[in-house]
Amino acid sequence: MTESVLDYMTRLGRAAREASRVVARASTAQKNRALQAAAAALDAARSELSAANEQDLAAGRANGLEPALLERLALTPARIDGMIEGLRQVAALPDPVGAIRDMSYRPSGIQIGKMRVPLGVIGIIYESRPNVTIDAASLCLKSGNATILRGGSEAIHSNRAIAACIQRGLADAGLPAAAVQVVETTDRAAVGALISMPEFVDVIVPRGGKGLIERISRDARVPVIKHLDGICHVYVDAQADLAKAQKIAFNAKCYRYGICGAMETLLVDQAVAADFLPAMAAEFRAKGVELRGCERTRALIEAVPATEEDWSTEYLAAILSIRVVDGLDQAIEHINHYGSHHTDSIVTEHQGQARRFLAEVDSSSVMLNTPTCFADGFEYGLGAEIGISTDKLHARGPVGLEGLTCEKYVVIGDGQLRG
Amino acid sequence: MTESVLDYMTRLGRAAREASRVVARASTAQKNRALQAAAAALDAARSELSAANEQDLAAGRANGLEPALLERLALTPARIDGMIEGLRQVAALPDPVGAIRDMSYRPSGIQIGKMRVPLGVIGIIYESRPNVTIDAASLCLKSGNATILRGGSEAIHSNRAIAACIQRGLADAGLPAAAVQVVETTDRAAVGALISMPEFVDVIVPRGGKGLIERISRDARVPVIKHLDGICHVYVDAQADLAKAQKIAFNAKCYRYGICGAMETLLVDQAVAADFLPAMAAEFRAKGVELRGCERTRALIEAVPATEEDWSTEYLAAILSIRVVDGLDQAIEHINHYGSHHTDSIVTEHQGQARRFLAEVDSSSVMLNTPTCFADGFEYGLGAEIGISTDKLHARGPVGLEGLTCEKYVVIGDGQLRG
Repeated sequence: MTESVLDYMTRLGRAAREASRVVARASTAQKNRALQAAAAALDAARSELSAANEQDLAAGRANGLEPALLERLALTPARIDGMIEGLRQVAALPDPVGAIRDMSYRPSGIQIGKMRVPLGVIGIIYESRPNVTIDAASLCLKSGNATILRGGSEAIHSNRAIAACIQRGLADAGLPAAAVQVVETTDRAAVGALISMPEFVDVIVPRGGKGLIERISRDARVPVIKHLDGICHVYVDAQADLAKAQKIAFNAKCYRYGICGAMETLLVDQAVAADFLPAMAAEFRAKGVELRGCERTRALIEAVPATEEDWSTEYLAAILSIRVVDGLDQAIEHINHYGSHHTDSIVTEHQGQARRFLAEVDSSSVMLNTPTCFADGFEYGLGAEIGISTDKLHARGPVGLEGLTCEKYVVIGDGQLRG
Repeated sequence: MTESVLDYMTRLGRAAREASRVVARASTAQKNRALQAAAAALDAARSELSAANEQDLAAGRANGLEPALLERLALTPARIDGMIEGLRQVAALPDPVGAIRDMSYRPSGIQIGKMRVPLGVIGIIYESRPNVTIDAASLCLKSGNATILRGGSEAIHSNRAIAACIQRGLADAGLPAAAVQVVETTDRAAVGALISMPEFVDVIVPRGGKGLIERISRDARVPVIKHLDGICHVYVDAQADLAKAQKIAFNAKCYRYGICGAMETLLVDQAVAADFLPAMAAEFRAKGVELRGCERTRALIEAVPATEEDWSTEYLAAILSIRVVDGLDQAIEHINHYGSHHTDSIVTEHQGQARRFLAEVDSSSVMLNTPTCFADGFEYGLGAEIGISTDKLHARGPVGLEGLTCEKYVVIGDGQLRG
């Protein structure tokens, strides 16, 4: 290009800001029409999508990309089906924009309430999964936001082909092309520019490895919705149904090792540890899960000694740390101290213990008698998620349409004056 | 002190974090008892408060503090009454903590909802008004947060005396002393430390001049709730009741020049400008308000020519810029471009025009037929405000108890598993 990356990104940013005003006032029907038309365009473009993806895969193989990355990069027919289905699901979700709540009269005679409105322009920075392009674009569009998408350079041809389908959807609904823009350059300076334009971008959502997210959070001059770690706990209380606890803990760890909601540490009340741990350990061992335990754990079952570091490690693998605790207080203390404020669950039949755990554990999701691996936008009914936030301000937990909006005050009077 | 400022602030931070766990689970009755007891302690300590304040005032006079600053610093009997009344009002507000909304069943059988919880530890950095100590401490306590308060060094004796009363309240309710801590050193390094401890402080609220807020926003490593400018507009629509419009615009400008909700720019539809502006201008002129107008304005009334800079200036003074616009679209465009996303009002009797203005103006408060100077926590029924946020993420507009909390997901099951 003859244009500098900074000029190019400024141009995208300015266009996104302008388009955001139009998308913000688009009707629900218009936004849904764009989503449905984009789904139809994807369905009609299967061969183009596969050809574009094959270009990326070939380049990836030539560049020695790891098999796991190639696997993520692949746009299989099933993944294309998933993207189409995802668009239709987002179209079917209720539109959060414009909802007004809590309108009430004040003594002065003015009426006050809150209206839900889009955030404006959302920048998404992600790694090689091309289906994120559809997830992010559809959620942002439905919530009335403009988006700038910056995917991994390995997926550039796939992302362009997907973007072309989204463009057909926008055109069909009479929405501006700049409502969804894919960054066309693979120059890394584009990321630096995207996270430094508060005048054009309202929030950045990074999706990918911890390194990417840390770097972006550190350098961004725009608010970031993010999560770094998922160090999730299941606490088996003295009043737990132990059969239920065993099933929940097994599912929490083994549903999938690599998801952020996977249990990394199992806490067990000392009162039931001797009854609970041997059978539990046998089930994990049969599945090939390595166990690392505190001293009291190792007095009951065979386990590698857990180090201080284990308690704050996200394994994302077939490894589990286990600690026997004195009771609820120590469990809560452990979770709030070593956890990552992501998702934590108590197994108990005791109402008072459950109530305290749910109130006092400082995590984005707190659970009772259910495995931590349920922490997911689809499972929560959000339709999809743009990410999971472990920050406390603004969105917390899986972020769907509501997390991409905010509320402003609406004040209605009829000539009332102050003072 | 022999202790370094950094060590001192770390000690406060650690104590605040510990205390925050206790305050977060304190009952409503216990928090209200602390607030009522602090009010009683203030009432009983009037002479100590006046003596401490006299020390600050004497030092201020000796250091040549400006009269306006001395005025803000003064703890008059009326201001002490105001602080006592403020504590009682906050005690009377509903407790937001623990409220659960939208619990619903998912197809998997788990039940999902959201629980409102405190943010944790809130750092408040403010200038010389000692009554902020009470406003901030009471709102933070009621919303279940621990607070670290860093007031202006000119008010240190007053703030210590107020803090002693708060401590009596906390002790009376059996709450930890570290739930509300006043930074005892006037060393400026304390501010730098306070805004750089994400492990101990969850959010910073700066209150004061624009310089302070800009500096803190730039340097903070912790989220900041803030507002910089209040460039507020009143737009007089073609369908306005012009008599009502004149009263609203006059009140918006002249209720108080120095508040952030004061109107700085008046926009008038060209269709009614000739009918509206002459009488309006005469009223402003009689009050001594300097008028700065666009060309079309100056064709109708006497006014200084407005420069491009005027449209983005927060005067906080008896100066008003006036622009005649082509209609609603240009008014919205002007406000979104030149405004500060604070508070903007339309005067119209036309439902469709009102609906568009309220939806499309991108400000923390949008108003209909009422003056912008209503933008205030008390007027909005929040009891008090810790500040006004013009950011879009998290709190937007006047920030009361709800803005000092967040929501986490609560997931309840009975042994449901995933997959």
